[in-house]
Amino acid sequence: MSSNSKNNLQWSFYLVLLLMFYSTCVYAREFNIPRLGAFQGKKVFQQHKNVEVDAESISISDDFQTFFYPQTLDHFNYQPQSYATFQQKFVISFKYWGGANASAPILAYLGEEAPLAYETPLYYKSFFNDLAIQFNALQVLIEHRFYGDSIPYGSSSEAAKNASLRGYFSSAQAIADYAEVLQHVKKNLSAETSPVIVVGGSYGGMLASWFRLKYPHIAFGALASSAPILYFDDIVPENKGYYSVVTKDFREESESCYETIRKSWSEIDKVGSEQNGLSILSQRFNSCSPLNNTSELKDFLDTIYTASAQYDDPIFNPVNLVCGGINGASYGNDTLSRIYAGVVALFGSQYCLPLPRCTEMVMPIGIDINDTMFPPHPFNLTSFTEVCMRRYGVPPRPHWVTTYFGGHDIMLILERFGSNIIFSNGLKDPYSCGGVLENISATLLAIYTEKGSHCLDLHKPDSKDPEWLVSQRKKEIRIIRGWFAKYYAQLQESKH
Amino acid sequence: MSSNSKNNLQWSFYLVLLLMFYSTCVYAREFNIPRLGAFQGKKVFQQHKNVEVDAESISISDDFQTFFYPQTLDHFNYQPQSYATFQQKFVISFKYWGGANASAPILAYLGEEAPLAYETPLYYKSFFNDLAIQFNALQVLIEHRFYGDSIPYGSSSEAAKNASLRGYFSSAQAIADYAEVLQHVKKNLSAETSPVIVVGGSYGGMLASWFRLKYPHIAFGALASSAPILYFDDIVPENKGYYSVVTKDFREESESCYETIRKSWSEIDKVGSEQNGLSILSQRFNSCSPLNNTSELKDFLDTIYTASAQYDDPIFNPVNLVCGGINGASYGNDTLSRIYAGVVALFGSQYCLPLPRCTEMVMPIGIDINDTMFPPHPFNLTSFTEVCMRRYGVPPRPHWVTTYFGGHDIMLILERFGSNIIFSNGLKDPYSCGGVLENISATLLAIYTEKGSHCLDLHKPDSKDPEWLVSQRKKEIRIIRGWFAKYYAQLQESKH
Repeated sequence: MSSNSKNNLQWSFYLVLLLMFYSTCVYAREFNIPRLGAFQGKKVFQQHKNVEVDAESISISDDFQTFFYPQTLDHFNYQPQSYATFQQKFVISFKYWGGANASAPILAYLGEEAPLAYETPLYYKSFFNDLAIQFNALQVLIEHRFYGDSIPYGSSSEAAKNASLRGYFSSAQAIADYAEVLQHVKKNLSAETSPVIVVGGSYGGMLASWFRLKYPHIAFGALASSAPILYFDDIVPENKGYYSVVTKDFREESESCYETIRKSWSEIDKVGSEQNGLSILSQRFNSCSPLNNTSELKDFLDTIYTASAQYDDPIFNPVNLVCGGINGASYGNDTLSRIYAGVVALFGSQYCLPLPRCTEMVMPIGIDINDTMFPPHPFNLTSFTEVCMRRYGVPPRPHWVTTYFGGHDIMLILERFGSNIIFSNGLKDPYSCGGVLENISATLLAIYTEKGSHCLDLHKPDSKDPEWLVSQRKKEIRIIRGWFAKYYAQLQESKH
Repeated sequence: MSSNSKNNLQWSFYLVLLLMFYSTCVYAREFNIPRLGAFQGKKVFQQHKNVEVDAESISISDDFQTFFYPQTLDHFNYQPQSYATFQQKFVISFKYWGGANASAPILAYLGEEAPLAYETPLYYKSFFNDLAIQFNALQVLIEHRFYGDSIPYGSSSEAAKNASLRGYFSSAQAIADYAEVLQHVKKNLSAETSPVIVVGGSYGGMLASWFRLKYPHIAFGALASSAPILYFDDIVPENKGYYSVVTKDFREESESCYETIRKSWSEIDKVGSEQNGLSILSQRFNSCSPLNNTSELKDFLDTIYTASAQYDDPIFNPVNLVCGGINGASYGNDTLSRIYAGVVALFGSQYCLPLPRCTEMVMPIGIDINDTMFPPHPFNLTSFTEVCMRRYGVPPRPHWVTTYFGGHDIMLILERFGSNIIFSNGLKDPYSCGGVLENISATLLAIYTEKGSHCLDLHKPDSKDPEWLVSQRKKEIRIIRGWFAKYYAQLQESKH
């Protein structure tokens, strides 16, 4: 496989992840319309499938042994049904581990909203693997409850139908799961004195930083990549939000590309309102089945732009690709032809969006003002709540994350509380607007790059990586080395 | 009311609390026998009752306004029933408050396993009140879920019958309740910049320290009095446990008293096994109805000794009283007459023990060795579990507290994590064996007294208090003042 096709493949995989993250965690615009079900991203899906039988992937997975832990369904209550257990999957690689006798470290990858699959680029042969080599660490990767093979009572469709069961799908339960699994692993390996560093990206990065804050007795430190822990309640001003960053990314790439996108929305509406307008749009954008309304197309394009900005990998560079297509105009000079060329430049096929989660991860992502290239679409908690009630019969809890995990006045609060967390970010990533971008204390550190994208530091290091990315990773290693140095000194002292 | 009778009354009240705490939280010996239901502590109960109509108490309560907050039944799950609410009681006194504009502090008393009643000596006109005067603080006192007026769906008997409802009775839910109430209070009073210090004693002290660790964004600091947060799992060695401290307290008071108690157990068994032995014991110990077995008497005496040690107030001094009775022998020179004289010296009536809680608060209190004055009775998790299953249909979770809140290696873990907690203890208190007795860091501080008892520092300061107690309270005030000084300096800075 050429390096370019691997990059392409990798990026495509992130798009899939993004679509999941976008929808399960943060999609906050109106979604009471069919979510682009007409589009089927066959090509990307097939590429994705191929990895499973890719010889290299299999050899990677060979380093890992798969285990299952009988996980408690409900950690926080004591009802008879709370005691039910489900099999939670985790995998371990002993390959680089220095062993329990040496108190060699444990690196724990905290799964996000995705199955723990062998092809997931954030896990295997990624920076996580390099960290294990650096520190002679055991690698433990744990699957998030309700994903992959870790679904209570069988299939996810079963779980989705059962409102009572679905109710155990929460971040507090998820990190309590990780606590139990890590204690179990440490105990079974007699590795009680091995310091644990938890690692995660995006939603998984939030879990990693929250895990360090809530379970400091289990995780000694955290590397939280692109974790928008401040993107809740009213912490991020609306005009510094997700869509403002996406717009900035495109405008910095190309002013004319930005302008074309900005005017495309009204053009789509105009054509769509004409006679046969929807079938014209269906044809021009090559949809698999006819569009029912213009929102289906606009939402799809919205996802293309936001995904490109979020995963603006410096090698594959999707924003550059999309704008190249738009500015190149190989399908015609008019606005819609340019927009279509942008989509084609990125990939020929598309994805449908799964349903959103309706409970605690309420990021108020909206477009309230005119400085973005998107049509206005303020976040509306009322309609968000209505959709949740209709779909799941429960309302969201928009303030629970800040109640349980905090976020407001984080500088004041954490300056004298907590330690050993790296908040890494790339400012091209629109979620960086909700990330921690300032050092809070001497050990709660913000390491960001101007040109980085979502979770970029966690990717597998590549010889073509720009200097700033290499340097970001080096900084992270240096910081973690410093934590370990203190830990082992103190451990030594406590033995005397 | 004379100061002496007040002290007597106060102490009696602690005994009631102890009996509750003892049974709901920590009673870990076999309890599949009737828990002294024959004894009715009428005298103590009546004294206790009298306080409710005591003029002074009413005037104290006049400073407080009562409120109810619609509390979330289940903070951690998203089942339809999780959203049910119950009315949680809290009371506020504005009397000493400097106000929101001055960012004047909020002192929050986190209720323990007891109703928030006006006569509770830990709350009103206690050291908590003095702290409010010291710091011009708002006083907020919050009742624990499932106690007093804060019982989901009405009465406690209703709640006890319903296994599903009873399952929401957990410490994680309780501190999440406090988080919501405190956020609600701060918001409603526009007191967002007022620092909150949480205060609690015994189980409430554990909640206070855990609250600071889990909710640092809501509580800026904690005063945790007599909080045995380390009395879980295997953290405290069995020969340094609760009963060893009780024994030490009695032995230090009087070697002969200790000897009499030590040999009394076999004497009780001997008499009990004789013909008419049980009725002889019933008569000699003046039980309200006939004893069914000697365990009923032995368990009662066990409670008398442990309560006396735990609440060994330096003014009332129950260990001294009991030993005075035992050594004085006004009812006869033999062992049993001496023991009875000890009980009479303390009070003429007795209490029955309510049922134990069977979930997370599993303190492995047992008597494994011969260096105590009690008969051997090792802690047995298996039989503890059996009783829980029989009584409530659910097993305990003996490792959950250390999983969720930590405890093992606390010095290593918290030295570089967390801040602003005072762990106060008195070493006469048998629970001090599970308390934090060493400074962990510059702001996680252990303030203990050699002669202090359970929660003694939180009591209302009295002109007869010994110097060491006065000095302990002064230290606590000085430390909290230091926290505030830093907070206000930083707040000021953040405004510029």
